[in-house]
Order: sequence, then structure tokens, then C-alpha cells
Amino acid sequence: MEVGFLGLGIMGKAMATNLLRHGFKVTLWNRTLSKCDELVQHGASVGETPAAVVKKCKYTIAMLSDPSAALSVVFDKDGVLEHINGKGYIDMSTVDADTSSKISEAIKAKGGYFVEAPVSGSKKPAEDGQLVILAAGDKALYDEVLPAFDVLGKKSFFLGEVGNGAKMKLVVNMIMGSMMNAFSEGLTLAERSGLNPGTLLDVLDLGAISNGMFKLKGPTMLQNSYSPAFPLKHQQKDMRLALALGDENAVSMPVAAAANEAFKKARSMGLGDLDFSAVHETLKAPDHSS
Amino acid sequence: MEVGFLGLGIMGKAMATNLLRHGFKVTLWNRTLSKCDELVQHGASVGETPAAVVKKCKYTIAMLSDPSAALSVVFDKDGVLEHINGKGYIDMSTVDADTSSKISEAIKAKGGYFVEAPVSGSKKPAEDGQLVILAAGDKALYDEVLPAFDVLGKKSFFLGEVGNGAKMKLVVNMIMGSMMNAFSEGLTLAERSGLNPGTLLDVLDLGAISNGMFKLKGPTMLQNSYSPAFPLKHQQKDMRLALALGDENAVSMPVAAAANEAFKKARSMGLGDLDFSAVHETLKAPDHSS
Amino acid sequence: MEVGFLGLGIMGKAMATNLLRHGFKVTLWNRTLSKCDELVQHGASVGETPAAVVKKCKYTIAMLSDPSAALSVVFDKDGVLEHINGKGYIDMSTVDADTSSKISEAIKAKGGYFVEAPVSGSKKPAEDGQLVILAAGDKALYDEVLPAFDVLGKKSFFLGEVGNGAKMKLVVNMIMGSMMNAFSEGLTLAERSGLNPGTLLDVLDLGAISNGMFKLKGPTMLQNSYSPAFPLKHQQKDMRLALALGDENAVSMPVAAAANEAFKKARSMGLGDLDFSAVHETLKAPDHSS
Amino acid sequence: MEVGFLGLGIMGKAMATNLLRHGFKVTLWNRTLSKCDELVQHGASVGETPAAVVKKCKYTIAMLSDPSAALSVVFDKDGVLEHINGKGYIDMSTVDADTSSKISEAIKAKGGYFVEAPVSGSKKPAEDGQLVILAAGDKALYDEVLPAFDVLGKKSFFLGEVGNGAKMKLVVNMIMGSMMNAFSEGLTLAERSGLNPGTLLDVLDLGAISNGMFKLKGPTMLQNSYSPAFPLKHQQKDMRLALALGDENAVSMPVAAAANEAFKKARSMGLGDLDFSAVHETLKAPDHSS
Repeated sequence: MEVGFLGLGIMGKAMATNLLRHGFKVTLWNRTLSKCDELVQHGASVGETPAAVVKKCKYTIAMLSDPSAALSVVFDKDGVLEHINGKGYIDMSTVDADTSSKISEAIKAKGGYFVEAPVSGSKKPAEDGQLVILAAGDKALYDEVLPAFDVLGKKSFFLGEVGNGAKMKLVVNMIMGSMMNAFSEGLTLAERSGLNPGTLLDVLDLGAISNGMFKLKGPTMLQNSYSPAFPLKHQQKDMRLALALGDENAVSMPVAAAANEAFKKARSMGLGDLDFSAVHETLKAPDHSS
Repeated sequence: MEVGFLGLGIMGKAMATNLLRHGFKVTLWNRTLSKCDELVQHGASVGETPAAVVKKCKYTIAMLSDPSAALSVVFDKDGVLEHINGKGYIDMSTVDADTSSKISEAIKAKGGYFVEAPVSGSKKPAEDGQLVILAAGDKALYDEVLPAFDVLGKKSFFLGEVGNGAKMKLVVNMIMGSMMNAFSEGLTLAERSGLNPGTLLDVLDLGAISNGMFKLKGPTMLQNSYSPAFPLKHQQKDMRLALALGDENAVSMPVAAAANEAFKKARSMGLGDLDFSAVHETLKAPDHSS
Repeated sequence: MEVGFLGLGIMGKAMATNLLRHGFKVTLWNRTLSKCDELVQHGASVGETPAAVVKKCKYTIAMLSDPSAALSVVFDKDGVLEHINGKGYIDMSTVDADTSSKISEAIKAKGGYFVEAPVSGSKKPAEDGQLVILAAGDKALYDEVLPAFDVLGKKSFFLGEVGNGAKMKLVVNMIMGSMMNAFSEGLTLAERSGLNPGTLLDVLDLGAISNGMFKLKGPTMLQNSYSPAFPLKHQQKDMRLALALGDENAVSMPVAAAANEAFKKARSMGLGDLDFSAVHETLKAPDHSS
Repeated sequence: MEVGFLGLGIMGKAMATNLLRHGFKVTLWNRTLSKCDELVQHGASVGETPAAVVKKCKYTIAMLSDPSAALSVVFDKDGVLEHINGKGYIDMSTVDADTSSKISEAIKAKGGYFVEAPVSGSKKPAEDGQLVILAAGDKALYDEVLPAFDVLGKKSFFLGEVGNGAKMKLVVNMIMGSMMNAFSEGLTLAERSGLNPGTLLDVLDLGAISNGMFKLKGPTMLQNSYSPAFPLKHQQKDMRLALALGDENAVSMPVAAAANEAFKKARSMGLGDLDFSAVHETLKAPDHSS
């Protein structure tokens, strides 16, 4: 199977490598073309522009860093739109529902087919082909590119109309953000009540609510170490967008709202660029010892 | 090793059976003595009163239904106190820190030794010897009865002074209650936003926050089925007590507080005797279809 | 002094009448021109279009129903922009900061002067010249039209750059919305605790937090009567916008966030078109008597 | 009319002075008897013990500093109970409902009559006879001592059974505490959004939610000055007790709960002894300037 692939950032490179390894013929494009060199040695071809890639390949996958990059490769000169008639475009970047809809409409207006497919998982799962793929849009196109999704992810979901992939990510991240606050409150309560918070981690790990996030983040949170895997300001943005989605649909979410305010408090403390587990800091009593 | 065992409810019977199965000599007492018959056939002895059991055994374990039962076997006529001098008493009932302290002080005043050891886990883990034991009190006694804890649980923790076992349970249950609210909000948001909440369960199950509670409760919550494993009113009571513990120690817990108000809302809707996952109902829009 | 006046809704009519009564020469325009007849009998002139009014008058005041009407009179054919060069335009409609900025920029680009001046107060204060005017934009223009503001309001504030008028209204309405929730919770707690909520109103009225809103809304809320003075959905929208303003500026507002979720709950119960005091209904236990 | 009066603290002295000034015959007792001297010069008599005062007077009013003092004058040797048979006892101290009930039952068991009558208002209203009196208990006794209440307060309410006075105070203080949080959030939002918070105070003062508390506290809050009129830790205690009252009666109060957590946050910051308006500090971003 032949696919185009736009974007060789950390995620994109791992994904394109996986496709090559599983026998796909891959034509690459990246804004800095030299980043393609390594994969060319493993058998990839290169296109000069997004348009050139789309012209050559029936299916083109994109994995770009943010909404503006995602819009740019589609709408700019020599962009995807120029040769999309009759072709399939699969955008796996994480973008908001509006951006996704804008791309979708433009592509359909030019006679192309579109699937949005944001993923859950970062560098390691991308390398291991263990992403979770939240796809939505053109069902026939989704079915055709399933072989690629099978290589890239451990599981893919088809969620219906364009926008649903973005929404599903928001719901998951909202639950995650509230859980992180609940966890932080528990760690703080344990510590301040004279319990060993390290023991709390052990106890939690043996019970029904044991989960990977508590296991991964707990020990570093107890060391006040918040090296950013998922920056707090992005988590707070997702909480805000999830609450806005709830507002549109008249869903009252008091726990998420309280968690969102805690993340905002953390931002006001200058912690926005740290890991989202840094919300833990909002609960601490100021140090009066100095 | 010889142990006394007071209380043959669902949990107590499973635990005493386990002890017998692993070669412990067990002397039973239960308020309704006939409940001991089955275990006698498997080799257990019977004591006529709590006092008689304590007199016979160096170590006596209790697993009673609530604080008043826990107080009663200790303080009533023919109770534990009468022969506790020089003996060890291990109360594994779930009681509040005050009840535990009252029992501890009385036993120490009579020359006995005390460990509180509430457990995490219900019937099935009790039968399988897979409880998590949160012990506190007399460290030497704890060490002496470790062989029994090893049979009853997959793991036991020694948490320091009496009261810490109860506190650790509160912290865990507080985190659990907030998580249940976050989960309910997510399910409701998904549904009201046009996503399939069943798919949300699948997506959650593949990610970093996957956990046993979501897996177990999710499918039944989507069927509005709340058969009580852990009654909502007890969950709300634990949230209240955890918040009170936070109040004592000046710990602000805005997410737990919001979750607690949602559980109170559920109580006001008459859902207190259902499973704590029934908090899901507080988020639903009233049915205007009739 | 001669002024143009665009918009003869409930508010606009009362305001234009006041201006006439105090000796202003007023040239009116309204989408339905016949609405001007009554005021013409009191001495007003009429312009055929917004452009015609602006052409004739050095200063034109607008009081329109919503952002789309406010944009329409400015940007449509025969709109304000056509003759604004060298003239002053004062928009007293309640619109969001973005709408206000758009109008401001267009007018300045055409060589006009702009003041936004949303008001606090409804029909009665408009008739009595007792509005509170929250003005921002061109300070010189503000100073020139002060005689008109003095007739229309009991007090006007100049708040700096365009957008600040809208923001000030949001802050005030946010405080008001949280207060309404606090008040509802108090009334409900009193009633459910066996106190007479009517007596609570009397006690509140004698203390430091006595205020006009409690006095006005309390008695009707106790009768479950929520005839809309300020519709709940508009109050909730203002809470949402105030929280968004806080988000931009990293201000954590946990009480406003909780109040906002209660208003959303009310919307989900179908109460959006009732008065914002209907948030009281979210706190009631369902009636199990039927 | 002749009354006994126990307790000459700041409040008690002002109240007893008022009674004397209006022609009541007053017999005083205070733990430090010398504090009675000044009032004796204005015509008061002195009793050696609470029992002696009760023996001499048909009605005895108490105004003591806290629950333990209130219990002590009743239950200790030479206390109120010794001669209460057939007499009336009016406790105007601020105590919790439990303390009040304990006193009430003991007095009734001895053949006495009891009214609890906590007040709203501090030193100044006490001196001016402008207290608000929240009475409950024996209605006949209430009616008999109305002449005294008329001197001490601008208004008295009879609220039914003992405990209702304390409950009414909690409800009022809960609303007040939530309002203070809403106000703080508004001031902070204004400031951080580039508005002048002093102007916000002026705008608020002209609208429907204008109230004495905003007027009194606003200016000092803007100067970060929190000299304690009502200490934050007492306000937080009242929030906690009001939430507990809600818990008993299954009333969900999300806004009060959020406000309570903010007060707890303030306590954790070491602000418990400042005025309750110091909750304002919890919203501030830390100063990164140093």
C-alpha cells in the first residue's frame, strides 16, 4: 500500500518509520526537507511540496504540530487542496473541532475525502505502534486506510462525523484532569494528616482505582518534580474546551469546573509550562520557615 | 498458630475459612452461635462469649459489622476486656478513628495489646485472601500476627499510631469518590455531545487512566443500574469525614468538596441506598417527554 | 444640544423621551419607522436611515437590542459609517467586547469618534434617568456628551479603552450571579432545616448584607415565581464570559465557577427563559409525593 | 422590670448599661466581680454567684464569651441550676445548637424556663440598642421579656424550638461568607483585567446588589488591610457548621462548599486570625518580583 506522509516531528517520524517497517511505500514531505534523509535511507521517497505528495499518492496522512501548521499545509500555495480531487486525506494532528471542520469542508469542496484521526499516546506508543486512534469523517476512506491504522495503533475507533475525534479527546482529558486533582488532594491530605504519602501510593496501587497515571506521576509529584510530559497550560485549555462543550449542551459539570479553577490557580502561580501534575502545588501551604 | 475470631458475617466467615484452610487453629464466636456450625465441621472450635475466646487464645481477631458492634464485643458483659490482660486484640472492622481510639485505650488500660486493621476489599478478595490490610497501633503485636495477615491479604501495611488505618481508608475513598464524579461527568458529556458513551469506555480502557472501577461500573452506569456494592450514603459519609479531616489540618480540597455536594444532591434525590455510582443520575436532564 | 438617536425599543424610547424632555433636539431612527410617531408629537425629528441621522447630527446615540443589530446599523448599506467622518457615535447597547472593538475600529478608520457606553439598569431607571453608564473609548467625545449622560443616568463612569465598559458589566453580573446562588442556598437550607425562610428574609434585611436584589427577588422566589426580569440564560452567558475573562488573565474563581455550573444545571432543567433567580429550583429535592 | 445579668464583657457591659438607662433594675454578676463597679455607680446591684442572681430575679439574661463559659455558669457549683425552679433564663451568648439544647434540657428538668437569643451585631449596635435578636425556646418567657429585647435590639424574632436561633445565624453567615468570596473574585478579576477596582466599588454601590458589607470592606480590602472585625477562622467554622447542617438535611450547596474551601485555603496560608475579608488573598498571584 502506498501512502503520503506530511510532517516528520517526533510523532510523525516514529509513525512514518513504522509504516516503512511494515512494508508500506511512503512518500514524505516535511517543511525542512532534510529531515527526510534518514527515512529515505530506509526506502522512503520524498515529495517537494504537500501538493506533490498528494498528487502521487492515493492516501496522504498528516501529523503536524498544531492547528496553524495543519491549516497551512492544506490551504497554502502548493498545498494539499491543489491535487486532492478524488484522493483521501487523513489528518492525525491534534487540532480543535473548528480547524478540523474547516479542512474537511475545503477538501470535500474540491472533490477529496477526509478523515480526522487525532491520537492518544505520545512518543513511545508512536514508536511501538501502540497509539489509540480517534477517527471520524468519511467512513469509506476510514475503511480503506485501516491497514495503516493497524500498523500505527493498537486500536482505532470510528466516531462518526468530523469533530467527534476532537470531542472524544476532550472528554478523556477532562476526566484525566479531574482525576489528577483528586489525586493531588489525596496526597496532600495524607501528608498533612500525618500519613506517609508514599504508602498511600502503595495502597492505591493495590485497589480498584489503581491506574497508570497514578503509578507514573505519584512518585515524581512527591518529589515536587514536574518535568513536562503534558504541559499544565494545555491540560487547562482542554478542561476549558470540555467545559465549553458542556455549556453548549447544557451539561453541568461541577467537579470538572472546580478542577479547572485549580489549574487556573496553578497558571497564575507561573506553573503553566510544567507538567499538569504541578497542580499539586496549588494545595500546599506556603512555607513560613524562611 | 492459634487465633480467636469474633464475627462471622460475610467478610468474617470468608476470612476465618481462609485461616482454617491454611492450618491455623481457630476458636470462633458469633452473636448467633449457630453460624459457627459449618466452620466447626472444618475443624474450628467455638467460644461461648468474646471473653471465653480471648481467655483461650493469645491473639483474637474481630471482624464486626459496624462501630456499635465493635464497641459491644469489647465493653459489654462477657466482653473482650475481661481477659485481655497480656493478650493481643486485632480489630479488622471498618470503624471511625474515635471508636478505634476508645477500644485501644480500654484494652491498653487492662494490660492488653491492640492493632486496628481495617481492610480494603469486599467479599471476593476476602475469600481469595486478597484483602489490603491497613494496620496501625502496637507494632510488636502487628509483627506477631503477620502470618495471619499474610493469609488474609495480599498485602498489609503498618501505618503507625491508632487512627491512621481509618484515616488512610478515608483518603483512598475520597479519591475514589471524586474519580467517580469525574467519570460520571465524562459519560454525560459524551452522551449529550453526540458521542457514544460505550465507545468512551473503550477509549478510556486503552489509556493511562484505565482502572478497575471504570471497567466494572461503566457498563452498568450506562444501563442506569446501580445495584449497591458500596452504598452512596456511605461514600458520601466518607467524603464528609475526609473533608472534616482536611478541615482539621487546613487542607483546601475544592474538587472533593464539589464531589461531596454532588453526592449530597444524589441523597436529596433519594438515591442514598443505591450504589455510589448513582451520582451519575444527578447530571441527567429531567425527562420532558411525558 | 442636538443628538441623533438610533433604536426605539423599550430602553431606547425611554431614553429618547428623557432627552426631549430635557430640551435636547433629537433626530430619531428606528427599523420600524412608525415607532417614532409618538416622539415626533413631542418634538422629535426623524431620519430615514442611520446614515441620514449621522449626517444631520454631530453626535449620535444608539440603543439596540443585541450585537447583530448593533453591527447592522453601523456596517449595512445606509449605515452609520457612511457619514461618520468627523462625527461622534455613542453605542449604549449591551454588546460583547469584540463587537464593540469591531465597531470602534471601523468608525475610527472612517475618521469618526467612538464611545461605548453600556448601562446598568432596566426600563424603570431608563424612564427615570437613573441608569448607571459604563463608558469607554474616546475621552474627548465622552466629555462632550456628558450633558446627555447626565440626563440619562444618575452616574456615568469613564473606564478607559474600548472594551472596558463591557468588561465592567461582566464583573458586576458575575458577582450578582454568585450572590443569587448563595441566597438560594441559604433559602433552601433554612427551609429544609425547619426555619421559616420568610423570617430569613426579614433577618437578612436588618443586617450588613441587606441589598435590593434580596429584597426584590426573595418574596417571589419563595413563591416559586420567576417571571423574567433578567433571563437565566443571559445571566449564565455573562458568568461564562466572566470566567473566560478570568481564564485569559489567569484568575482562579472557584465560587463563580460553582455558580456557573448551577446556572447550567438550571438550563438543563429547561429554566433558561425564566428569571435568573430560578436557579433556586436546582436546589430543591424532587417531589416524591405523586 | 427587674432582671439579672450574667457576663460583663464588651457586649454584656453595653447591654446591661442600656437596660439600666431604660429604667430596668439590674442585678449583675461577672466572673471578675470588680468589673461590675462602674455599673453599680449607675444603680446596678451585684450578686455573688450566678445562683444568687437567679434566686433574686425572676428573669436572668446571660451574655458570655463562648460555649464553655455558657455551660459553666449553668452547671458549675453555685450555678444557675441551683435556683432556677420557676424562673426564666435567657442566654444571649453565641453558642452552637448542642450547647443550647444541653442548657435548655437541664433548666427545664429543674422546673425553669429557657430562651436562647443569640444576636446579630457587635459592640456598636449593642451600645445603641440596635442588635437583631434571634430568639427561640419558651414562647411565654419570650413574650414576658420582650420589654428587655425592645431595649437591647432594633428587632427580635421568635424562631420556635431551641436550636433555631443558632441555625438562623449559621444560614445568615453562610450567605455572607459566599458573598465575600464572590466580592473578592470580582475585585481580583477587575484588577487583573485592567479595570480600576475602586471604580468597581463605585459601580456596585449604585446597583441592585449594593450592600453595607461591600461598602465597609471594599476599600480596606483594596489596601490589603484585614484588621479583624470577624475573624476568618470563625467565619470558616460557621461555613463548616452550615454545610454540616445541610448534610443532615440532604441539601446540596455547591457555592457555599467552594467558598468554604477558599476560607480553608486562607487558613492554610496563616490568615485565620485576620478579618474574614482576607480570603481575598487566596486569589492573588504570588509576587514574582523579588
